[in-house]
Amino acid sequence: MSVDSARDGVAIQDQYEPFGGHCFGCGRHNEHGHQLKSYWNGQESEATFQPAPYHIAFPGYVYGGLLASLIDCHGIGTAAAAVGSDDGVHLPRFVTASLKVDFLRPTPVGVPLHLSGHVVEQGARKVVVEVTVRSGGERTVQGRVIGVRMPDEMAR
Amino acid sequence: MSVDSARDGVAIQDQYEPFGGHCFGCGRHNEHGHQLKSYWNGQESEATFQPAPYHIAFPGYVYGGLLASLIDCHGIGTAAAAVGSDDGVHLPRFVTASLKVDFLRPTPVGVPLHLSGHVVEQGARKVVVEVTVRSGGERTVQGRVIGVRMPDEMAR
Repeated sequence: MSVDSARDGVAIQDQYEPFGGHCFGCGRHNEHGHQLKSYWNGQESEATFQPAPYHIAFPGYVYGGLLASLIDCHGIGTAAAAVGSDDGVHLPRFVTASLKVDFLRPTPVGVPLHLSGHVVEQGARKVVVEVTVRSGGERTVQGRVIGVRMPDEMAR
Repeated sequence: MSVDSARDGVAIQDQYEPFGGHCFGCGRHNEHGHQLKSYWNGQESEATFQPAPYHIAFPGYVYGGLLASLIDCHGIGTAAAAVGSDDGVHLPRFVTASLKVDFLRPTPVGVPLHLSGHVVEQGARKVVVEVTVRSGGERTVQGRVIGVRMPDEMAR
């Protein structure tokens, strides 16, 4: 069963089990983190994020490590939403096997970022997601996330 | 002329121009950031970093976005050190064109991380660096950074 989180207005990350809510990038229980919220419309995922003024690589430009982080969390969330809930309540937790980020042009600070994601490959354990980052409508970064179902031994 | 920063005991990132010292990942002037320090021995680069307790993906494991960020800054620093200073004082500033990170196994929290980097391809504008992250001597993450000389228009 797939949870339609866009319909419910509930972020993908808020549908993880509490165990999965501590991620620095997107966990609702991580008060120090970015708390990215991604939404799924049944076909693709979307998120917006406003970098802090200090999230820079150089004056005026967003830090690439932050962009990679957002792509990672958004991609993993997209994988979870696409696969859907096993129990009708929580979305499954994926981990990142590989992350590739192409910085197409500098991303200016002071502008909200828009992320969109869609699945390009979906297997029983492995899901591949393409994530695009846009700033002011212009695509600045393209990412690819290979997610795999979290091994049981990590969910201690 | 190549600056031997290992000999001087000065971190690569502390040899960037002040303009290049604001990076969230490694800038000495970014008080909110990670302030990664990388050292070059003439052949390869090394760095150590202790993640904060909240830099987690799940309880017990380091956040992949942080690992990607450290690889990015360490790789770019390695590119700069390998190319060496134009003016004998500052190292040149590279930007990331592409970043690939393979998470080979989970990286535990509470253990200092060790990063090592070496150049695998060096052209006039483009340098490719391989970065390995080890935890307790075990390789947990492998990264590849494609850096290019910073366009003049970014150095405003």
